[in-house]
Amino acid sequence: MKFLSFEYQGKATYGVKVKREEAAWMLPAIFAAFGSGDYPQTLLEGLQQNAQIDFQEAVRQVVAEAEKSDDKDSYKAPFKDIKFLPPVTPTNNVIAVGRNYKEHAEELNNEVNRLYVFTKAPSSLIGDGNEIPLHADVTSQLDYEGELGIVIGKYGHKIPKGLALDYVYGYTIVNDITARDLQKEHLQAFLSKSLIGGCPMGPYIVTKDELPTPENVSIVTKVNNEIRQDGSTSDMLLKIDDLIAEVSKYVALHPGDIIATGTPSGVGAGLKPPVFLKTGDEVKVSIDGIGTLVNTIGE
Amino acid sequence: MKFLSFEYQGKATYGVKVKREEAAWMLPAIFAAFGSGDYPQTLLEGLQQNAQIDFQEAVRQVVAEAEKSDDKDSYKAPFKDIKFLPPVTPTNNVIAVGRNYKEHAEELNNEVNRLYVFTKAPSSLIGDGNEIPLHADVTSQLDYEGELGIVIGKYGHKIPKGLALDYVYGYTIVNDITARDLQKEHLQAFLSKSLIGGCPMGPYIVTKDELPTPENVSIVTKVNNEIRQDGSTSDMLLKIDDLIAEVSKYVALHPGDIIATGTPSGVGAGLKPPVFLKTGDEVKVSIDGIGTLVNTIGE
Repeated sequence: MKFLSFEYQGKATYGVKVKREEAAWMLPAIFAAFGSGDYPQTLLEGLQQNAQIDFQEAVRQVVAEAEKSDDKDSYKAPFKDIKFLPPVTPTNNVIAVGRNYKEHAEELNNEVNRLYVFTKAPSSLIGDGNEIPLHADVTSQLDYEGELGIVIGKYGHKIPKGLALDYVYGYTIVNDITARDLQKEHLQAFLSKSLIGGCPMGPYIVTKDELPTPENVSIVTKVNNEIRQDGSTSDMLLKIDDLIAEVSKYVALHPGDIIATGTPSGVGAGLKPPVFLKTGDEVKVSIDGIGTLVNTIGE
Repeated sequence: MKFLSFEYQGKATYGVKVKREEAAWMLPAIFAAFGSGDYPQTLLEGLQQNAQIDFQEAVRQVVAEAEKSDDKDSYKAPFKDIKFLPPVTPTNNVIAVGRNYKEHAEELNNEVNRLYVFTKAPSSLIGDGNEIPLHADVTSQLDYEGELGIVIGKYGHKIPKGLALDYVYGYTIVNDITARDLQKEHLQAFLSKSLIGGCPMGPYIVTKDELPTPENVSIVTKVNNEIRQDGSTSDMLLKIDDLIAEVSKYVALHPGDIIATGTPSGVGAGLKPPVFLKTGDEVKVSIDGIGTLVNTIGE
């Protein structure tokens, strides 16, 4: 399944992609019509309730009912009429891992022998198709980082590596926008990584059953259709299970938490000479099996 | 007013300290009995609604009604029967500033010429009187940092320094527990600062009208009643208004957000030889006008 959150007819809601159609099943309306009991008002609530009920199975059942109904089209929101939101807004800041691809660490002259984990403020999250402000008042070095995002499905702390994948709900695409000048100046990455619009995410959360080999998918970032990053998650130094085990050794993970897994080489700061984002640039991050996250740089 | 959140008779709730009594007015019960319309279910909701209604004034009115009532004692929770919770759990991670006292930066051989901002995971928050786990499986250098915490009262982004204090709701005490070995090893402070129980906060949020000179109050940390930190917020390099202006230049601030403002000298890692926390140690952080935050190190 491909879950998404979006605005439709002026209201924020969430849903699941209709197969072979550019549209979303509107889950709150479908749960209200065909479900029973309380149903999740947001995708985050769906993930949070997943410990008690099988959210994905509940969705499958009510969507099957909706599909059989006479007015099934009334439960669909066509993509052309929606504004994508970040699929989920976690209760933790977005957890992000740096220096997890050797060539990327090297292009920025960084060491790779340490677990390098920082966070991005929730207010930096935006959805597919939304504008990333240029923030020219505070940075002249806005840069992209295409990344695979792990979406956590249940609470865990000190998760053994061998069980780590049980804690994954699915995967998404994250563009870990970074103000390079601020990153250098401040030493701690939080501020440079948390500008408003600095965490495009989406368009979907793909459930893990639909991405069976997340550690061997291509990840490509294009700026104005020019390929800048052409990597594979197979080059990640710490793998998905390593990351979950390592991070949760220290920090509790919660349903809906996001771990952005680091970026391959090819960021703007690594080009010779460096090239940073400017107003009007279109940044596309594509991950095989998830889709493409597209955002344009605003004023 | 001194706001607090707590567990009483097995339920999480919030309230305001009864004057000259070691007890809390239980605000949800008082709002239900004497208020009208929807009332905040949590202190965070109270702060969030503050943009529309004057939360503090609403509390003043219903508490005055409760005080006049015949069964006024039924609205009080005696401190001896409550478990303190963190006064508020923000929607952002706790924002924390490092190297904001010159002597503390020097005792750890750090530079002070940069804005140094990291975050602490919400799952690290605990209330007054709760145990801080030793976390011996991941660290042998658990250390305290007594700090003034700013509590944000309304949404703001790029807040001018001259208006910064308008965005303050009140102040609290934060103990920015740090695993020094992890802090060194990981470069980014997030993990070393986010262990479960690693962010004791409270006991109260004191509204800003009751702490008229937050930039000139003493801050004292004792371990087993031995004074370790004996500082004053007057030694902060970036002042309260600077911090709000600087942080919000990059990151949006929300009601209930916490900015921990850095610690004075005297942390365990700065002693010669260094002394770290061990099971059974009692750590007390006192700030004039707010109170004392007491936590004991567990197993």
